[in-house]
Amino acid sequence: MPKITRDQVRVPADVMPEMRDTYIDNYLKATRETGRLMLFACDQKIEHMNKDFYGEGIDIADAEPQHLFEIGKQGTIGVLAGQRGLIAQYANDYPEINYLIKMNSKTNLVKTSQEDPYSPQLYDLDTVLAMREAGVNIVGLGYTIYLGSEYEATMMAEAGELIAQAHANGLLVVLWIYPRGKAVTAEKDPDLIAGAAGVALCLGADFVKVNPPKPEGDDTRTPFEALKVASMAAGRTGLVCAGGSTVDAETFLTQLYNQIHTGGACGNATGRNIHQRSLDEAVRLTKAISAITLGDASVAEALEVFEGKKDFSL
Amino acid sequence: MPKITRDQVRVPADVMPEMRDTYIDNYLKATRETGRLMLFACDQKIEHMNKDFYGEGIDIADAEPQHLFEIGKQGTIGVLAGQRGLIAQYANDYPEINYLIKMNSKTNLVKTSQEDPYSPQLYDLDTVLAMREAGVNIVGLGYTIYLGSEYEATMMAEAGELIAQAHANGLLVVLWIYPRGKAVTAEKDPDLIAGAAGVALCLGADFVKVNPPKPEGDDTRTPFEALKVASMAAGRTGLVCAGGSTVDAETFLTQLYNQIHTGGACGNATGRNIHQRSLDEAVRLTKAISAITLGDASVAEALEVFEGKKDFSL
Amino acid sequence: MPKITRDQVRVPADVMPEMRDTYIDNYLKATRETGRLMLFACDQKIEHMNKDFYGEGIDIADAEPQHLFEIGKQGTIGVLAGQRGLIAQYANDYPEINYLIKMNSKTNLVKTSQEDPYSPQLYDLDTVLAMREAGVNIVGLGYTIYLGSEYEATMMAEAGELIAQAHANGLLVVLWIYPRGKAVTAEKDPDLIAGAAGVALCLGADFVKVNPPKPEGDDTRTPFEALKVASMAAGRTGLVCAGGSTVDAETFLTQLYNQIHTGGACGNATGRNIHQRSLDEAVRLTKAISAITLGDASVAEALEVFEGKKDFSL
Amino acid sequence: MPKITRDQVRVPADVMPEMRDTYIDNYLKATRETGRLMLFACDQKIEHMNKDFYGEGIDIADAEPQHLFEIGKQGTIGVLAGQRGLIAQYANDYPEINYLIKMNSKTNLVKTSQEDPYSPQLYDLDTVLAMREAGVNIVGLGYTIYLGSEYEATMMAEAGELIAQAHANGLLVVLWIYPRGKAVTAEKDPDLIAGAAGVALCLGADFVKVNPPKPEGDDTRTPFEALKVASMAAGRTGLVCAGGSTVDAETFLTQLYNQIHTGGACGNATGRNIHQRSLDEAVRLTKAISAITLGDASVAEALEVFEGKKDFSL
Amino acid sequence: MPKITRDQVRVPADVMPEMRDTYIDNYLKATRETGRLMLFACDQKIEHMNKDFYGEGIDIADAEPQHLFEIGKQGTIGVLAGQRGLIAQYANDYPEINYLIKMNSKTNLVKTSQEDPYSPQLYDLDTVLAMREAGVNIVGLGYTIYLGSEYEATMMAEAGELIAQAHANGLLVVLWIYPRGKAVTAEKDPDLIAGAAGVALCLGADFVKVNPPKPEGDDTRTPFEALKVASMAAGRTGLVCAGGSTVDAETFLTQLYNQIHTGGACGNATGRNIHQRSLDEAVRLTKAISAITLGDASVAEALEVFEGKKDFSL
Repeated sequence: MPKITRDQVRVPADVMPEMRDTYIDNYLKATRETGRLMLFACDQKIEHMNKDFYGEGIDIADAEPQHLFEIGKQGTIGVLAGQRGLIAQYANDYPEINYLIKMNSKTNLVKTSQEDPYSPQLYDLDTVLAMREAGVNIVGLGYTIYLGSEYEATMMAEAGELIAQAHANGLLVVLWIYPRGKAVTAEKDPDLIAGAAGVALCLGADFVKVNPPKPEGDDTRTPFEALKVASMAAGRTGLVCAGGSTVDAETFLTQLYNQIHTGGACGNATGRNIHQRSLDEAVRLTKAISAITLGDASVAEALEVFEGKKDFSL
Repeated sequence: MPKITRDQVRVPADVMPEMRDTYIDNYLKATRETGRLMLFACDQKIEHMNKDFYGEGIDIADAEPQHLFEIGKQGTIGVLAGQRGLIAQYANDYPEINYLIKMNSKTNLVKTSQEDPYSPQLYDLDTVLAMREAGVNIVGLGYTIYLGSEYEATMMAEAGELIAQAHANGLLVVLWIYPRGKAVTAEKDPDLIAGAAGVALCLGADFVKVNPPKPEGDDTRTPFEALKVASMAAGRTGLVCAGGSTVDAETFLTQLYNQIHTGGACGNATGRNIHQRSLDEAVRLTKAISAITLGDASVAEALEVFEGKKDFSL
Repeated sequence: MPKITRDQVRVPADVMPEMRDTYIDNYLKATRETGRLMLFACDQKIEHMNKDFYGEGIDIADAEPQHLFEIGKQGTIGVLAGQRGLIAQYANDYPEINYLIKMNSKTNLVKTSQEDPYSPQLYDLDTVLAMREAGVNIVGLGYTIYLGSEYEATMMAEAGELIAQAHANGLLVVLWIYPRGKAVTAEKDPDLIAGAAGVALCLGADFVKVNPPKPEGDDTRTPFEALKVASMAAGRTGLVCAGGSTVDAETFLTQLYNQIHTGGACGNATGRNIHQRSLDEAVRLTKAISAITLGDASVAEALEVFEGKKDFSL
Repeated sequence: MPKITRDQVRVPADVMPEMRDTYIDNYLKATRETGRLMLFACDQKIEHMNKDFYGEGIDIADAEPQHLFEIGKQGTIGVLAGQRGLIAQYANDYPEINYLIKMNSKTNLVKTSQEDPYSPQLYDLDTVLAMREAGVNIVGLGYTIYLGSEYEATMMAEAGELIAQAHANGLLVVLWIYPRGKAVTAEKDPDLIAGAAGVALCLGADFVKVNPPKPEGDDTRTPFEALKVASMAAGRTGLVCAGGSTVDAETFLTQLYNQIHTGGACGNATGRNIHQRSLDEAVRLTKAISAITLGDASVAEALEVFEGKKDFSL
Repeated sequence: MPKITRDQVRVPADVMPEMRDTYIDNYLKATRETGRLMLFACDQKIEHMNKDFYGEGIDIADAEPQHLFEIGKQGTIGVLAGQRGLIAQYANDYPEINYLIKMNSKTNLVKTSQEDPYSPQLYDLDTVLAMREAGVNIVGLGYTIYLGSEYEATMMAEAGELIAQAHANGLLVVLWIYPRGKAVTAEKDPDLIAGAAGVALCLGADFVKVNPPKPEGDDTRTPFEALKVASMAAGRTGLVCAGGSTVDAETFLTQLYNQIHTGGACGNATGRNIHQRSLDEAVRLTKAISAITLGDASVAEALEVFEGKKDFSL
């Protein structure tokens, strides 16, 4: 896959002139000079609490949070996304990782049937900029919006302001957008997913992470055809799909390949599928994923990487 | 239609003296030196999500957001209204368009029966001023108020403050005002629409976008006669009507002509009717609309423009 | 009526020393050097929307907002009270009027049975001070509190802070206080009205506008005797009564005379009774009202003024 | 009663060094150099509206708010507590009084059965500091917390922040703490009152005003024995009891004596019992109260003062 | 137990470079140069009001708040945790104690069945930094989060921002995290406790105080085995257990020993178990606890300390 050059990076008009070079640096770092994003999602310790990290079917290595950073260091990823505090506790020992600070999070204790979801912004951007200033390799921010929640307004406003401020300071922004709430009956409805992609664009995000659409009833399109409509709706915002719960590597890699090559996706966002494995296996999986996302490999080639038969690094 | 001069622009008393020239520049740009407004509404990717852009009866070109900017560039419009992020992603490639930043937006997922509508301000004015400073051709702001909603207070306060700040900085403001909420039984009641127009004036807006009033029952006035009362109530705030869903061009242009010449409207605000068409047809429709709004053409002349038999540019 | 001198103006202790002269100027302007207030209320385009300005029994002149400013210019008033935006759109053409900026407003669409009333502050004081700085003749602020509403706390706090800031900057403040909400069964109960007057004093207002009390049941006092108790409770805060809906001039002027001479009121606050008339009649009514309020005329003298048999100007 | 010296004033650690002398001045003024507090409560015009000031059994003098200031001037008190605006309107004419600014207040219109009580902060501390700067003799602040209300959190936070800021600026703080709300079944339960006293200490108040505890059922302690536990729980925060509705002077003075000498109270907080009387009687009552609180007199001696047989001044 | 050196202190990446030495100082003070935390919890006067301090089974010494500070002075502890105001009133007389300012607190009056718990932040960090500047020996902050409450979002956001600010200023942060609210059926469920520990890490806390997990049903692990999973989930955030209500010393010390040596806990957080005793006994208990936590003593050795047979100091 050909590397993109500094000139090829399209800088949004809300990046202030003096931060243009910083934005380009961060874009090239995050996409490993490919324009595609391999996002390693490490924010589930709040989102799903400890159940994603300990229990049946999960390698015991995952019980210790340092596991995430070892994968980030030894594997091949674009960015490691996690909450500010998590990264503050480990970043000094893992300075080579590109960090994406997840700005909001909620636990899954209160269910939608009790109250529509709201994920609060947990710290001001200033605290993140200070960390960057102090030397942490932060390339961007993440924020989750639950569209259709009764708290949609608050999240839209927090995200809207964050993107403006982040761009002004040369940082990328990835939005996680999930339709969810009492008003939402089918969270993966293709129209909704495409709508979510368009919302991300209107807010000015650089990338948007959505769930893969699920055509149902009369809709005879494949999920990847439906995804293509969402990718178009996202316009200049790159679309990536959430990885979901752990499946076998071949299924996972095939799906990813189709998301990119049929669905128009611009990368991947993967968490549990990676970190619930042993360190070695997890590292190999990051390389296999990156082979497809960042190296434009075929599924077969990626599987060879996963099986350790060949390497993929950048 | 005679051009208005700098001296003829009536500058509100809350435009700070040092921003007086900027306000006049923006007013002349937005109205193309006519005092009338041709607003191309491109904020529906949040308001209506993807259903306005993809599906039966919609040209496939509309699935890609760049379509909006191509129309804005090739067609004849006063301003292109869209969210800050959308404009940030494309403005560098379309520097000639006059942009109006829509400051708030909501999706249509939560219905009024579940909760009264609130459309949150999505970013501070400072972030918009910074974009202007960085070179984006921003001439004004837009904001939607749902009068009669239980959240009316929040939107009134956000709009009231925004107008003060926008004027102080030389920017125009267009309010979208729709009566909506459990307390509102007839959203297009002529008294309500006229009331909305008066509210816009009291808040100090330069233009207000309302739905065309719909006289019912004992009220035997034509819609355009009823609109005239609203235009009067708006005083020095120019009134324009929302375009609504797509209809055939002749119906649309006739309606617009009557809104201006009988109803006292001061222009138009049109979105779906334009962008759901192919690029070529959409461009011709913007010219036909502008022929009426900005060129004081007859319906017949405008139809000729739409049919490509004559051109209208400024 | 003898004019009061600068020395006779009692300046509250929260007027900062450097703004003492400004406060005295504003007090003398607003009261036309009488210590009494003739307030022309022009805030109903939000409060009552267009129904106060157009319809049966209302002169067609009132449909155009400029009517209000013509009355203010040609008539005799103390201050014209209206929202910031309304005044910003006309003040440059009517520089001689003393303006009182109404800082909050709500429509009447949501009824108390649905939700207790809250009238939001629509702009920061800074935006008003900037307008004053830019040359608009602003002498004071107005704010409405609905006592007994579930949102009483928010309005009390907004008013409390505004008065402190307004005085610090040399501006007068008039509070509109109406008991209203599910907890209030008799909005014009004399004890409540007197209580409202005392609240205005505790918040530090210069004047308070209340509804005339209505003694009922065992309470055999006249409304004006009951009003006297409220005027006493107001202490150093001058009390004026709301004018209410339009009645014939004689009834209106007699009532006003009694409010002042029996009820201890310190002026009047009149809107619809004035502006729903033709310009000529409205102008004469302002003069008749001012004859009583500012000139200490009898009802008979005031009626002669209203009938155009004699003039009253200051 | 021996006077305390500057050295004996215990200055909290959150009084900034440069404000240490100011704090000591204010403490000595407020306690008239005794360490005990005689607080004249004049905040009921909002709390109880006009019913505390006009009606059967209330001297007509109380209908005019100036009555409060005349009592403060002619009587013997430690501080006069009232809202900022009230004090702003009269303080210039009564410069000798020590003022305590009541920072929050609510009316009694909305009952607890409709909504739990919340008393909002009515103005920023800055506005109070500005008044002090402009020459008003302000020695401290007051704030009411309704413990057990669903709005407890907001009041606790406002109080917590105010105390920090007030101390930093050399001002004293008196908290009024009343358990009240749907969760509170016995507002004068001794455990609750002692708990309230402890809360005041944890927030850092200098004095706390509570209702006298009322032992019931198996609790055979006298109210004054129960009060002693609350006084202990208050630690270094001085505890004073609310005076309640008007009773005869002897009952009142005996109760106060016991609150101090058995209950460990550190003064009194009295309003209606004083101001509902004629000026002369009210003045004598302040002296009688102060004889006990500030002069360590016996009940008999205090009664002689009340009856005008001897004087008590400081 | 070997002392840790300055170089061994792991400083989070959000401690600003100029505050690195301060953070190390505070860490060494709080942990008495051991890396373990002995936290003396003195915040219950708000949390549980006076019932923790007065009544059957509680030494009368505890009725006076000074008791807490005497224990802190004469005993052996790491930090004394209490609200800002409490510490402000006593710190000048107890300068040798390491203080941890509890930033939020609520009473227990409103039960979860009425409303989900929210504990509000009671003062800005600036007020705490000012106290530190004025000489109070403040080493860190505490904050309580109720996970699963409908107000989780507010507490998460307040905590998230506080930790960032505290670290930036060189202060430690201890989070108290309790799952509680209508959505939480088993507050001590091991998965939930481990989840809470992970949340603390993601927010960047230095230590987290949780309730000891209670395995039930099919879960046959001992509480200490379950605690080990939580300690692992906490990663670089040290985990300590809440002490709970008073039990006999041997039970208490045995439990603590197992929490540390089996459960991986990093210290203790103890309140009532200490202060409800007489001063002498309380002092001995702090030394016994510290013998285990800070001195790595056996239970038998600690009991000897408690019984006064040997001493433990640092």
